[in-house]
Amino acid sequence: MGKTIGLLHPGAMGSSIGAAARSRGHRVIWASEGRSRQTVERADDDDLHDVTSLEVLVRSSDIVLSICPPGAAFELATTVASFGFDGLYLDANAISPLTAQRVAAAVRSAGATYIDGGIVGPPAREVGSTRLYLAGEAAAEIAALFNGSLLESFILESGEFAASALKMAYASWTKGSAALLLNIRALALAEGIEDALLAEWRISQPALEERSNQIVLGSPAKAWRFTGEMNEIALTFESADLPGGFHRAARELYGRLSHLKDAEDPTFNEVIEALIEAR
Amino acid sequence: MGKTIGLLHPGAMGSSIGAAARSRGHRVIWASEGRSRQTVERADDDDLHDVTSLEVLVRSSDIVLSICPPGAAFELATTVASFGFDGLYLDANAISPLTAQRVAAAVRSAGATYIDGGIVGPPAREVGSTRLYLAGEAAAEIAALFNGSLLESFILESGEFAASALKMAYASWTKGSAALLLNIRALALAEGIEDALLAEWRISQPALEERSNQIVLGSPAKAWRFTGEMNEIALTFESADLPGGFHRAARELYGRLSHLKDAEDPTFNEVIEALIEAR
Repeated sequence: MGKTIGLLHPGAMGSSIGAAARSRGHRVIWASEGRSRQTVERADDDDLHDVTSLEVLVRSSDIVLSICPPGAAFELATTVASFGFDGLYLDANAISPLTAQRVAAAVRSAGATYIDGGIVGPPAREVGSTRLYLAGEAAAEIAALFNGSLLESFILESGEFAASALKMAYASWTKGSAALLLNIRALALAEGIEDALLAEWRISQPALEERSNQIVLGSPAKAWRFTGEMNEIALTFESADLPGGFHRAARELYGRLSHLKDAEDPTFNEVIEALIEAR
Repeated sequence: MGKTIGLLHPGAMGSSIGAAARSRGHRVIWASEGRSRQTVERADDDDLHDVTSLEVLVRSSDIVLSICPPGAAFELATTVASFGFDGLYLDANAISPLTAQRVAAAVRSAGATYIDGGIVGPPAREVGSTRLYLAGEAAAEIAALFNGSLLESFILESGEFAASALKMAYASWTKGSAALLLNIRALALAEGIEDALLAEWRISQPALEERSNQIVLGSPAKAWRFTGEMNEIALTFESADLPGGFHRAARELYGRLSHLKDAEDPTFNEVIEALIEAR
C-alpha cells in the first residue's frame, strides 16, 4: 500500500530521495512556503506534490522525512511536533547522536515514532551510489519504502542513534581529511614551499597532489554547507571523550570559504588566499 | 677533503645519516656520555667514532649535525653554542620555522653558521628512500657531504627556514591523517558501529580499513616520539594564521598511547582502549 510521505525538504539530496520513494508507489508531498525557486524546480522535476504549507504537510503525512542542514534539524523537529505529528519521523541529517537524541525527544513529545537515519553518498540518481542507514524500532518500515529503489537502505542494530554515529564517523574522514589538505596547501603557499612539497608528494604520496587540487577547487561551492556538520562531528568525538579538535579546525577552514558559495569558478590561488587572509 | 662531522645523536635516523657521511670519506664522531646502550650499539654498527663527551665533540668538529627529538633541539643548540662552536650547524629536526629561528639565533650567538634541514623518509639504508632538504646560505656545503651517498639532498631557495617548513607540511599529512584515523577507529568502537563503518568503507573508501588497521597496530611503538612534533606542526600552522587544531588533537591522541612505548605487540582493542579510556 502506498504511504503519504512528507519530505522536508527537496534539496539536491532530499529531492532524489523523494523520487526514490515515488518510484515505489508512494505519494511524496512537500511544502513550498519559504523555499527557494531552485527547490521548486527540483521538486517539480521529481514530480513531488506541493501542499504549500508545512502544517498541511504534517497533518497529511504518514511519515515525515527530515533532510536538511544539520543546524536546522532540531528546530524542524520541534515545528513538526508543534503540529501534533504522531506518525513515523525519520531524521536523516548529518547530526551527532547527542543532537539526534534531542530531535527524538522533540518528536516523541507529540507522539511520533523517531527513526534515526544517516545518508552516505551523493544524491541517489544511480544504482549503488547512495546508502541510507537506519536505526530504531521502526527502521524496517522506513527501509520498506525504498525497497528496490535507487536508494539502498541498511538497518543497524547497535543502538537507537547508530545511524547518526555512523554518518559522523564516515564524514569525519571524508570532510576532515579534505580540510586537512586545504590547511596544508594553504600553509605551503604561505611558506613559499609549494613546489617542493608537491615534488616530495610526487615521490612518496602520489595521490595527494591531485586530491588536494580537487579539494581546493571544489570546496568553495560547498564549504558553507559543511560548517554545521563539522560542529556536529566535533561534538560526536567529544561526547565519546575523544578530541574534537580536528573538526573544530575543519569548521574554521570551511567557514573561511563560506563567502565563496556563489563565486564563479574561483581560481586555486583565490581559494588559498581566502583561507590565509581570513585572519 | 674529508671533514669531521659531529653527530648529535646516533638514533635510528641519525646513525644512518652518519653512515651516509662516512661512506663519502668523512670522519663522523659522536659522544656516548649519557646515551643508551642501544645508541652505543647502533653507532658501533655504523663505525662511528666515539669521543665520549659533547664538549670534545663540539671542539673537534667542522660541522655539527643535530638530529634529535623536536623538544630537545633548542637545548642542544644552546649547549653546543656554550662550547663556542663556530663551524656549520645543521638542524635537521622536525621543528617549526619559529623554533628553527630560535635554534639559529642560539648557534649564531657563538659564531656558528646555521643551516636549516628537514628529513623525509625512513632511516637512509636504501637508495631513494630518504631525502634531506636544506636551506640557508651554506646549504650547498652540507649537500656536498652526502653527494653520491644513500641520503639524497635537495636545496630549497625559498627562505632560510624553508626546510623546516617543508618537513612540517609533509608530516602534517602523514602523521595528522594517521591520528585522524586513530580517532575514527576509536569512535567507531566506542559507538558500536565498527562493523558498519568498515562495511561502508569497503564500498566507498577501500584503502581505509587496511591503512587504519596498520596505524592502530603500528602507533604504540612510535606515538611517544610524535607528541613534540605535533606541537611543532600546530605552531607552524598557527604562525601562518591557519588552524592548529588538527595537530593539537593529534598530539592528544599520540599522548594517550605514549605509555605503550615498550608494550609487546598490543592488540588492536588494547590500543583503542588506551585511546578511549585515557579520559
